[in-house]
Amino acid sequence: MSQPDYITSMNVPLKDKADLDADIREAFDYLEENHGLVPNILKAYTFDQDKLRPFMQLYENIMVAESDLSMLEREMIGVVVSSINNCLYCQVAHGASVRGLSGDPKLGELMVMNYRAAELEPRQRAMLDFAVKVTERSCEISEDDREALRRHGFSDRAIWDIASVAALFNFTNRVSSALDILPNAEYHYLYRTEPE
Amino acid sequence: MSQPDYITSMNVPLKDKADLDADIREAFDYLEENHGLVPNILKAYTFDQDKLRPFMQLYENIMVAESDLSMLEREMIGVVVSSINNCLYCQVAHGASVRGLSGDPKLGELMVMNYRAAELEPRQRAMLDFAVKVTERSCEISEDDREALRRHGFSDRAIWDIASVAALFNFTNRVSSALDILPNAEYHYLYRTEPE
Amino acid sequence: MSQPDYITSMNVPLKDKADLDADIREAFDYLEENHGLVPNILKAYTFDQDKLRPFMQLYENIMVAESDLSMLEREMIGVVVSSINNCLYCQVAHGASVRGLSGDPKLGELMVMNYRAAELEPRQRAMLDFAVKVTERSCEISEDDREALRRHGFSDRAIWDIASVAALFNFTNRVSSALDILPNAEYHYLYRTEPE
Amino acid sequence: MSQPDYITSMNVPLKDKADLDADIREAFDYLEENHGLVPNILKAYTFDQDKLRPFMQLYENIMVAESDLSMLEREMIGVVVSSINNCLYCQVAHGASVRGLSGDPKLGELMVMNYRAAELEPRQRAMLDFAVKVTERSCEISEDDREALRRHGFSDRAIWDIASVAALFNFTNRVSSALDILPNAEYHYLYRTEPE
Amino acid sequence: MSQPDYITSMNVPLKDKADLDADIREAFDYLEENHGLVPNILKAYTFDQDKLRPFMQLYENIMVAESDLSMLEREMIGVVVSSINNCLYCQVAHGASVRGLSGDPKLGELMVMNYRAAELEPRQRAMLDFAVKVTERSCEISEDDREALRRHGFSDRAIWDIASVAALFNFTNRVSSALDILPNAEYHYLYRTEPE
Amino acid sequence: MSQPDYITSMNVPLKDKADLDADIREAFDYLEENHGLVPNILKAYTFDQDKLRPFMQLYENIMVAESDLSMLEREMIGVVVSSINNCLYCQVAHGASVRGLSGDPKLGELMVMNYRAAELEPRQRAMLDFAVKVTERSCEISEDDREALRRHGFSDRAIWDIASVAALFNFTNRVSSALDILPNAEYHYLYRTEPE
Repeated sequence: MSQPDYITSMNVPLKDKADLDADIREAFDYLEENHGLVPNILKAYTFDQDKLRPFMQLYENIMVAESDLSMLEREMIGVVVSSINNCLYCQVAHGASVRGLSGDPKLGELMVMNYRAAELEPRQRAMLDFAVKVTERSCEISEDDREALRRHGFSDRAIWDIASVAALFNFTNRVSSALDILPNAEYHYLYRTEPE
Repeated sequence: MSQPDYITSMNVPLKDKADLDADIREAFDYLEENHGLVPNILKAYTFDQDKLRPFMQLYENIMVAESDLSMLEREMIGVVVSSINNCLYCQVAHGASVRGLSGDPKLGELMVMNYRAAELEPRQRAMLDFAVKVTERSCEISEDDREALRRHGFSDRAIWDIASVAALFNFTNRVSSALDILPNAEYHYLYRTEPE
Repeated sequence: MSQPDYITSMNVPLKDKADLDADIREAFDYLEENHGLVPNILKAYTFDQDKLRPFMQLYENIMVAESDLSMLEREMIGVVVSSINNCLYCQVAHGASVRGLSGDPKLGELMVMNYRAAELEPRQRAMLDFAVKVTERSCEISEDDREALRRHGFSDRAIWDIASVAALFNFTNRVSSALDILPNAEYHYLYRTEPE
Repeated sequence: MSQPDYITSMNVPLKDKADLDADIREAFDYLEENHGLVPNILKAYTFDQDKLRPFMQLYENIMVAESDLSMLEREMIGVVVSSINNCLYCQVAHGASVRGLSGDPKLGELMVMNYRAAELEPRQRAMLDFAVKVTERSCEISEDDREALRRHGFSDRAIWDIASVAALFNFTNRVSSALDILPNAEYHYLYRTEPE
Repeated sequence: MSQPDYITSMNVPLKDKADLDADIREAFDYLEENHGLVPNILKAYTFDQDKLRPFMQLYENIMVAESDLSMLEREMIGVVVSSINNCLYCQVAHGASVRGLSGDPKLGELMVMNYRAAELEPRQRAMLDFAVKVTERSCEISEDDREALRRHGFSDRAIWDIASVAALFNFTNRVSSALDILPNAEYHYLYRTEPE
Repeated sequence: MSQPDYITSMNVPLKDKADLDADIREAFDYLEENHGLVPNILKAYTFDQDKLRPFMQLYENIMVAESDLSMLEREMIGVVVSSINNCLYCQVAHGASVRGLSGDPKLGELMVMNYRAAELEPRQRAMLDFAVKVTERSCEISEDDREALRRHGFSDRAIWDIASVAALFNFTNRVSSALDILPNAEYHYLYRTEPE
């Protein structure tokens, strides 16, 4: 089989769920019940729950909490950034999220392969173009780039969130690739059914 | 829906199968019977069968005819090259081929997302590394690179074929992207079932 | 004066310290007492303390908490990554930290300008080379790269920390540049005295 | 002498003209009579005429057959693409074609060295700029790029042909460089005479 | 200490001032009296005064002689170019010049770290943008780029000087880095005092 | 005709030879008598002889004066650097020099098109590889790179000269391209005769 079947090849002592602190264990239970699995990146971090905790909180704040961006939009940004960085973990895991949240399996593929070929609202295309520039040439972002987003109706809070999501995946992509953390194999098969 | 539903946005007069020359029509019949569809790139070329014919013949010679490389290996090269060039058409169509020929849906995803993360025979890894260099810096290919392949057991004919496949996708990727040719939507759903 | 004198040009409602929640206010008091200032990036985040809190906690865990890497080593990584990304904020703020922690003002400049020209222990040079690869081509990181660090005596936990610091600055660099957050002007003048 | 004097360093059994199939032999005769030589890339392919045949047919269709682009324009595109890829074979062979077809030896040099410095009709400059983008960033080609060509009077068939020529040289450049196929030495000396 | 304390690691016989020809010795005396030091790059060149002499003269003509550009503007260009090339020597030495000539230590840092973040007159920003393009993609400079400078009020002589300064630092950056010439340590500490 | 027939499009007052200072006029006479022409870049600089003089002296010292490198080797470096920078002027003018000094027209073409494809002594190949690294990534040059040259028998003075020549063309390429200075048309036709 093509994908190695470990969680990470790093020699760090992963903990079983039973051995986790109560707050983390509850969070893992929640994920299993609601998403059917605990993402491998969280399992990889169990070797040090003091690292896992703020990572989960930052992720939750940026990707799940209330925002002017929908969860689908945030996931779309995440996949496009991960595609630039060629991060296997995040393309697999968040590609599945895009398929699931949109009900459109093709959209997940297009975010992975070439978002410029997708038929998107101009507002979403501008959002993704900004995220790409944040990823590739953040030092060249100027007020003109932010103004372009405002003209599409994005508030300054929304722009903050676009930048945060793009920045977050520039973090997680590098952690996953540098530390050889592999996505749960289940993700490959989720949300593949053709919509009617 | 995220993927536009035309074959190409170019203003060229596509022909119905009934209006094609006999040899092309037969080839299309064969593809429908054996693969369930006629690839959109071939349909796009029907506006000029004199262009379609040599394209089909070159493709057939490089990707289908007898070779020291298996068909799966050739498709793997094709997807890795297409991933570098971010070609939607070829990643979708040939990603499906890799899933189908290997019986391993994850392998198709890994070739699209980051082939370096896949668990491959060293021989296949060397083959893909060569194809990447052919794609990104062909002018720096030297006898050392070819010798590295020979040490993995590749004959000079096999090296020729690796170079040819990599070069072919550097052709088709550019034709598809530059002329806005979109993959058949069916490809997205093929060979997605988890192996037992 | 060359550097604009706002904290951020984003139109978000920054809060005075008096209006912050108690835990954040205490953290800001601690920073003022121990470092002489509250970093502008934290002030910028006061418009939404639910965003500020996990950001501070992740930062604290990666940059301040116990680690096999010294605080100076982590700051060195931070500046080298920020130099690649040309992030004004992080080069200014963390350049000052390198100068302060090392007692060697030149070291701060070398991390900003070209770390390869610095006279470093081979172990530290390897650490920085890894951080650079994590920043520029994380998808090409392989077991060979991690083995190289192990041969220099880095534990797998230390490698995790190198990757985490590099990834963190790939986050903060993009947030600062994309949202036009400027460093406290004081940083420019700190720790500039020539050692005797 | 600076250029090796073999056709290719690959260990494949090249055939003498007398041993070729009749159709190929006739084509070689035609080339010798009309162009004074058989291009080395065709000689290199004689080890497998089943590969040579579709390659010649595709080349003939794209570079020689009727098109809205003149043969000189197609050769100009070929040299500019080959210059980006630093392909020795194609710069030498097609640089000679540009010199011969234009009667302007300097034009061949300018296509090799920096086409942007040449004095060209705006239409031809746009054609070459498009070919460069097809070569360097085909995944970013958009309807805007094609519209720019239409405004210069290019039909959609002509745009197809620009893309095809650019794509073809992205194929042949890689085959030649990866398989160490060297241009006929005669090309270096052809069409060098200063026009009166 | 982080910066090696030699002038250059090259094995060339540096001369003491007393052994220099009279014209060079006088020039060195002048530099010591007026700038407090002889730049290490000049000391490095003492091994061959026939090389040193034209280098000093070219430098003097481009950086010191009468020009439509102020000395500060020329130094700003120098630092921005050196930042792109990551040249330690020139960023250190000319960063100090920018701090000294402007009386604004932050300006020196901003030229090193990200000139795009600085608050500059549009004329100076255009000047630096041109210098960056000269550094990174000189073959793409066109009449449009020069016209943009003219619209900001730059004469053709001034444009010549912008190009010359940018080109000069593309020379000195490479000499310094390739030959391991290190900046005088004193530069690190010059002009660091906060303006009142 | 493809190449514009001005010396430079810059609006600077070029001087006739009769109006030049005696030393410059003599130098121009020498060039005409010995090389058959005065290079356009020198004519372009006549608008300001105070700029022309040190430029000529630096050029003379690096390219013509006694060196451990032959004049041909220095010209080869110049063309390879100019090819990376796509500088029309220097590729044309110094490509002719390589053809003339070597008596091998193909060598000039190979330096322009892809020096890696040329059959060179290992010593010369190492020299050119170093010049390429000086051009593309000078900040990564390390003692290892210089040691590699020493192993090929280059003295430290010779290494200085390789770096100087590479740096010089990084200067002249940018001046020529940024200021639209065109090569004398005669260069295109010089030294094209096939050796017997």
